[in-house]
Amino acid sequence: MLKEESVKRAELPMKEKMIDTCIALFGRKGFRETSIKDIVEANGMTKGTFYYYFKSKEDVLVYIHDTFISGLLHKQRKIMQTENYSYKEKLYAVVEMMILNIAEGVDSAMVFFREMRHLSEAKTKEILPKRDQFQKNIQEIIEGGISKGEFRSDLRADMLSYAILGIANWSYFWYEPGGEVKEQELTNIYMNIILQGIEEGKK
Amino acid sequence: MLKEESVKRAELPMKEKMIDTCIALFGRKGFRETSIKDIVEANGMTKGTFYYYFKSKEDVLVYIHDTFISGLLHKQRKIMQTENYSYKEKLYAVVEMMILNIAEGVDSAMVFFREMRHLSEAKTKEILPKRDQFQKNIQEIIEGGISKGEFRSDLRADMLSYAILGIANWSYFWYEPGGEVKEQELTNIYMNIILQGIEEGKK
Repeated sequence: MLKEESVKRAELPMKEKMIDTCIALFGRKGFRETSIKDIVEANGMTKGTFYYYFKSKEDVLVYIHDTFISGLLHKQRKIMQTENYSYKEKLYAVVEMMILNIAEGVDSAMVFFREMRHLSEAKTKEILPKRDQFQKNIQEIIEGGISKGEFRSDLRADMLSYAILGIANWSYFWYEPGGEVKEQELTNIYMNIILQGIEEGKK
Repeated sequence: MLKEESVKRAELPMKEKMIDTCIALFGRKGFRETSIKDIVEANGMTKGTFYYYFKSKEDVLVYIHDTFISGLLHKQRKIMQTENYSYKEKLYAVVEMMILNIAEGVDSAMVFFREMRHLSEAKTKEILPKRDQFQKNIQEIIEGGISKGEFRSDLRADMLSYAILGIANWSYFWYEPGGEVKEQELTNIYMNIILQGIEEGKK
């Protein structure tokens, strides 16, 4: 093992710990309301240690945003590349993944949805295309399903992708992980509505 | 006209102007990032004038939240009480109203969705029940529709109400009023999906 590599590995837990603290603090208090003093005190470290890993508080925010959306994109890509999945199954898996992701990291989701405006213009330009890509991929699944006759041909795939994003992402505003309705059941309920609609007597 | 009444009327434009400024500033810069100095300078007034109308910045935030949700509840109630509407028509009208409301006041919506956490616990306790009531009313429309056979009887009206809130409210994150898709068309697209679903070959 190269020396540099071994240093990098040893560094990881401390950096990860700091990120977790920041997610919790940014999520609960807000990005602007959290000071670097808060961060280092919560971890029992010095400011020097903080600046060893990050240039600034914004640097941490960029890291959180990038990790969140890159993780989602990675999982989404794997689903899209699953060869024996129908488009319906791909859509199901993406909705399930979004709901699980929010349920697993409510604080991360809160930072992601709410604190974007604290990124500089330059950093926003790096993150936004990834957010857009996530939406475009959902649109692509729908378009694939339309072309294969799995979905109705009169749909607007772009508008529908936003509706699906809205249904799944809104769950972060109200959903209680570990409550009466499990993530799997919520996915089933939502996919049932998306696929079949709510109107009676048309089936 | 009583003297008190005439004073109240004369006061309105100045108070409204100040609220509009605050909505724009809180929406664009954020609540925490906006100072009372910013607010009075944007209006060319003195701090004294500000404190004549409001006790604090939070006081303005409460006013904005309360006006936003009370306005929505009022319109929703009118729709629910429209006697010759089917439940399907009521649901359509509520979704349309939400989309129009967001399109008309993107800054208000931004303050409403994003800055809630800056309300004190006491004020949150006043606003939250109104938010909950809005969701419960959608649930009531769905339950009415199920009992009249307009909607499928196997639906969970509570989960569905959140899905509908998600679809409509998410539009504030991406929808461009005055763009290619008009509010009316967006409502039609969304209601079509909600009512009939997206699956091919089941109708």
